[in-house]
Amino acid sequence: MKTSITQLFNIKYPIIQGGMIWISGYKLATAVSNAGGLGLIGAGSMYPKVLREHIQKAKKATDKPFGVNVPLLYPNVEEIMQIIVDEKIKIVFTSAGNPKTWTSFLKEYGVTVVHVVSSVKFALKAQEAGVDAIVAEGFESGGHNSREETTTFTLLPMVKEKIDIPLIAAGGIATGRGMLAAIVLGADGVQMGSRFVASSEASAHTNFKQAVVNTQDGDTFLTLKELAPVRLIKNQFFNDLEKFYQQLPSKEQLITFLGKARAKKGMFEGDLEEGELEIGQIAGLIHDIKPVRDIIDEIITEYGFVKASL
Amino acid sequence: MKTSITQLFNIKYPIIQGGMIWISGYKLATAVSNAGGLGLIGAGSMYPKVLREHIQKAKKATDKPFGVNVPLLYPNVEEIMQIIVDEKIKIVFTSAGNPKTWTSFLKEYGVTVVHVVSSVKFALKAQEAGVDAIVAEGFESGGHNSREETTTFTLLPMVKEKIDIPLIAAGGIATGRGMLAAIVLGADGVQMGSRFVASSEASAHTNFKQAVVNTQDGDTFLTLKELAPVRLIKNQFFNDLEKFYQQLPSKEQLITFLGKARAKKGMFEGDLEEGELEIGQIAGLIHDIKPVRDIIDEIITEYGFVKASL
Repeated sequence: MKTSITQLFNIKYPIIQGGMIWISGYKLATAVSNAGGLGLIGAGSMYPKVLREHIQKAKKATDKPFGVNVPLLYPNVEEIMQIIVDEKIKIVFTSAGNPKTWTSFLKEYGVTVVHVVSSVKFALKAQEAGVDAIVAEGFESGGHNSREETTTFTLLPMVKEKIDIPLIAAGGIATGRGMLAAIVLGADGVQMGSRFVASSEASAHTNFKQAVVNTQDGDTFLTLKELAPVRLIKNQFFNDLEKFYQQLPSKEQLITFLGKARAKKGMFEGDLEEGELEIGQIAGLIHDIKPVRDIIDEIITEYGFVKASL
Repeated sequence: MKTSITQLFNIKYPIIQGGMIWISGYKLATAVSNAGGLGLIGAGSMYPKVLREHIQKAKKATDKPFGVNVPLLYPNVEEIMQIIVDEKIKIVFTSAGNPKTWTSFLKEYGVTVVHVVSSVKFALKAQEAGVDAIVAEGFESGGHNSREETTTFTLLPMVKEKIDIPLIAAGGIATGRGMLAAIVLGADGVQMGSRFVASSEASAHTNFKQAVVNTQDGDTFLTLKELAPVRLIKNQFFNDLEKFYQQLPSKEQLITFLGKARAKKGMFEGDLEEGELEIGQIAGLIHDIKPVRDIIDEIITEYGFVKASL
C-alpha cells in the first residue's frame, strides 16, 4: 500500500492514529507505529513535563516513526514546541488554531507538519501556511469539531478538488471499508480516533472504553458550539447540559457549569455519569476492545477483501 | 452494473433520483429513467389531481420503470395512494412517517415499496413492516432530515450490519466517486437529490438551480428541528429565521413566521431572498446545470475510472 501519505511518513499503512486527550500517550502511539501505522502522542492533556516523558518513553518503545499532536490553543504552546524540537520530533500534527503561527518554525527544524481542518477555506489557508499534508475532519468525528458541520462524505471531495498536497481523511472511519471509501473520495490516508479508544493500549479508563463499545447510532451529539464544539456521548452530564441550555446561559456561565477537568473525569477516570465522554458517531460500529495490532490487521484485511470484491 | 437494486427495479444503473418537492415532476423523473436510472415523481408538493397528470404524462414519456415518492405526512395521503394504485404505479418510495401504515396496502397491489430512514432503529422497523428496500439518508442530505444527525459515512455501515434487504445510500452523493464510496460502505445503490436539482429537466426555478451551483461548503445548515428538520442554503430568509430563534419562539410562532409556501417561493418561483432553499451539503461539489443524461453518463464514467484506479 503505497500512497503519498505512506511515503511522507515512511510508514507501511496509510493509517494515522488521531491525537486524543487522555487517550493517546506513548503506549497507544508506539503500538500504532509498531503495527505499521503512524502513532501520535496527544499533547493536549499533558503538562510539558509529562509530554517530554512520553516522548522519551516512545523513543524506547519503537524505532518506527511517530509524532505529536498539538492543539494550537494550548495555553503554553511555546513550551510544547520547544520540547518538540529539543527532543527532535520529526512529525507534528497541529489543530484548533492558526497554522501560520508555527508551521515555519517547525519546518526550520526539519519537522513534517500536518494541520487539521474542517472546511475548504481552512484547508487552503493551511496549504498556504506551508504544511506538508492536511487532515480533513468531518462532522461525525469525536472530540472537537467544526461549527459548519460539513460531513466526511462531502468535505473530502470538496477539499481534494482545491488542494495539491496529500490529504488525510478523518471522522467516521474505523474499518477497512471506511478506509477504502475515504480513499475513493480522494484521501491518501486516514486518521482514526474512536477505533483506537477501544484498544488495549489506549490510556482511556476501562469504563470509557466499554461505553464506546456500548454506543449505538444516535447516542452522540455535537454540543458546546459557543465554546469549542465537541461530540459527546449522551450521558447524564450531557443531559444536564441540555437542560442548562434552556436557561440560555452566557459563555461564562457555560464555562462555570462545565467546571474543570470534565473530560479527564469521564475519559481517564471513568466517571460515566458526570464526565465528558468525547467520541465519534462511528462508535456505533465498534464492538470490541482489542490490541492495536489486531485492529490494524483487521482493517488491512477488510480493505483488501472489499477492494477485491468490487 | 448488476446489484440487488438494479434487479429489484429492472434498471441499468443503481442510481435513483430522490423525490423532491417543487423539483421532480414527470420531466425529471422520466429523464432519469430514460437515462438508465430510476426516476421518482415527488408527490409531496402536488395536489392529487396534479400528481395524476404527472403520472399520465410520465407513462407517455418513458417505457422504463419509474416511481412515486410519497411523504407519509401528506395531509390526504389516502387520495395519493388511491391514485397510485389506480394508475398501476409499481414503485413507491415512502418517507417521513410510519411505514407500517401503507406498506401492506401497496404490496397487495404488487407495488415494490422502499422506505427512507435516517437511523438503524427505523431501518429495522421498515424491514419489519415488509418493505423491499431501504434508503438510509445521512445528515448531509438536503430537504428533510433526522434529529439524530447521523452522517452517510457512519449510517450506511451501521444500517448494513443490521438489515438483510437491499440498501440505498442517500445524502452527500453527486458523483461517480460518491457512488463508489457508498457501495464500498455497504450500499447496493444510491439516491441523489441535489445533483438532479441542477439539471435541465428539474422543475426548479433557474435562480435556484444557479444558487445550487454557487453554493460552497459551509453554505447550508440544518434548521427547524422543532418542526421537521430541513437543510437550507443560508440566504436572507435563513438569517431572519436565525434571528427569530433568538426570541425563543414557540412551535406555533415558528409556523406563523414561516408562513405558507416558503419552499415553493424559493425553489419553484426563484425568490432567493425570501424563499426556503432546500439543498444538501454536496451542492459545494456541483458546478454546472446540465441534462440528466450527461449527469448520469459522467457519474458512470467516473465510477468506472475510479474503480479501475484502485
